[in-house]
Amino acid sequence: MNVMDTLKKYSKNVDVELEESLSTIDPSSLCEASAHLIKAGGKKMRPALVVLSCEAVGGKKEDAYKTAAAVEFIHTFSLIHDDIMDKDDMRRGKPSVHAIWGEPMAILAGDTIFSKAFESIAETNVESIPPQNIIHALKTVVDACVKLCEGQALDIGFEGKLDVKEDEYLNMIYKKTAALISAATKSGALIGGGTEEQINALAEYGRLIGMAFQIQDDYLDVVSDTEEIGKPVGSDIVKGKMTLMVVHALSKASDEDKERLIYILNQNDESLVNDAIALFEKYGSIEYTRNIALGNVKTAKELLSVLDESNAKEALKLFADFVIERTH
Amino acid sequence: MNVMDTLKKYSKNVDVELEESLSTIDPSSLCEASAHLIKAGGKKMRPALVVLSCEAVGGKKEDAYKTAAAVEFIHTFSLIHDDIMDKDDMRRGKPSVHAIWGEPMAILAGDTIFSKAFESIAETNVESIPPQNIIHALKTVVDACVKLCEGQALDIGFEGKLDVKEDEYLNMIYKKTAALISAATKSGALIGGGTEEQINALAEYGRLIGMAFQIQDDYLDVVSDTEEIGKPVGSDIVKGKMTLMVVHALSKASDEDKERLIYILNQNDESLVNDAIALFEKYGSIEYTRNIALGNVKTAKELLSVLDESNAKEALKLFADFVIERTH
Repeated sequence: MNVMDTLKKYSKNVDVELEESLSTIDPSSLCEASAHLIKAGGKKMRPALVVLSCEAVGGKKEDAYKTAAAVEFIHTFSLIHDDIMDKDDMRRGKPSVHAIWGEPMAILAGDTIFSKAFESIAETNVESIPPQNIIHALKTVVDACVKLCEGQALDIGFEGKLDVKEDEYLNMIYKKTAALISAATKSGALIGGGTEEQINALAEYGRLIGMAFQIQDDYLDVVSDTEEIGKPVGSDIVKGKMTLMVVHALSKASDEDKERLIYILNQNDESLVNDAIALFEKYGSIEYTRNIALGNVKTAKELLSVLDESNAKEALKLFADFVIERTH
Repeated sequence: MNVMDTLKKYSKNVDVELEESLSTIDPSSLCEASAHLIKAGGKKMRPALVVLSCEAVGGKKEDAYKTAAAVEFIHTFSLIHDDIMDKDDMRRGKPSVHAIWGEPMAILAGDTIFSKAFESIAETNVESIPPQNIIHALKTVVDACVKLCEGQALDIGFEGKLDVKEDEYLNMIYKKTAALISAATKSGALIGGGTEEQINALAEYGRLIGMAFQIQDDYLDVVSDTEEIGKPVGSDIVKGKMTLMVVHALSKASDEDKERLIYILNQNDESLVNDAIALFEKYGSIEYTRNIALGNVKTAKELLSVLDESNAKEALKLFADFVIERTH
């Protein structure tokens, strides 16, 4: 079974939770706007990780569905609000929520889904999960929500700023992307009744593959071919987006090359993409970035040694590799 | 001690919670945007009701501070997002969050405060409150969040619609205003360890005074003098806002008067305010509205009979009267 099939298998029952939870929203306009992005699909990586982590520490899959739904709701809410802030009119190949229903309704749809996330956690069966563990899972997920907002604020703050330090950049992607993935694996382990050692290991596994996931996104922008990635190669460069490669190259380049790279990032010109990539290559920035992602995944897999052998553990290993092997 | 002083006394320690919780937000721009509205003040009615309800069922005040902070955070988050949706540039006598920091940062500030609400509940001391009660309080608060979003969506849907039925209008203000006030009193009773009878009575008390609170707002718009209410008399009429008086008058008026009232509501003309008020008087709409609020408060106070005598119980009675006696 390949990784995408595994993700689907482990998130299938969560899809039912998501749908049922959204179905009661009234009025219908808010219900439709709230369900739009969930229905559009997505990899369902986060809910699958919650369920896998629960099972990997010896818990029952079905105990994790509510928490898994919560994590997917939080991811979805953040996409809806980010799309408003970034004025992105397309998402998952469809018009984004605000593009269809307007900004007020999109803000509300995000808020509703955010509420549904916590409703979902609150509905976890206290007969099968000790209430303290549910509260601990709530804390874990909530902590990621605060970081998600902080990460987005940091990202907005980076716009037009070209002296971003590597640790500032890594802190931003930790908060914006890796924190929720870490909350997914940690909360799954909490609900599954893992030992403290297992919970910490899975939290760190999630953080590491979350960082690698974002870094791979940056990496794919310069090494993929357009057809596979579904957007033009170098589109980050054209948009002048801060990536780990840009941060690295700017920190290493000669004054002249630095000036040139900054010039390219400000031009919004596709014909300059190859020049930027040549500069990344000159300063080893692509390899540097790649090595960080590879190192993260290696460490993440080693951390799984605290788990007993199981299909879920194997799936978590495969998923770690998938993060850096994926081509889109 | 008057009611405003009582609210202040009971919410004082909650203010400390709110401030501490917001102080850790990073970056500073997001921290400032998130703290802006909390610092601007407000009546602190909701957190005071949480603490009072906790004490009124025999609980300890300090046990309720985290939940009280959560409820105030939720109220604040909804104001920030509503101001964006309604394009209101002033709030509590100061520029609203989006007017200072722009819409993206205001959306994020709301999301951050929303997260902080659940962080606050998750931090409730499990040594002194049974975890099941904390989860029950969480459910109560989360349910109000969903309703808050639904109420705002219904309100948006009413714009330009003049055939709103009374039960539709009451359902909207229940969801938009009363549900969170009911969640405040109910969650306070839950945290305080009240009996099921007490919890239900306080939930219903909160719903009733919440409805009365909103109806009083509508009422004050036509009976106050401008100086006291801090905005021109009849500003709802000028804006063509749906109120219980409008709904009532439209349901009772002759075809000619109905047409005239609809005309006035669409004109955005201050000189027509007195004509609209004359129509409300002709059809008894002001008295009708007033009587609903009075009836709610009477029932709300009767419900308090399930509580033992205490200062908190007395304060809840006084607060019920305050809701319909307040002049601004």
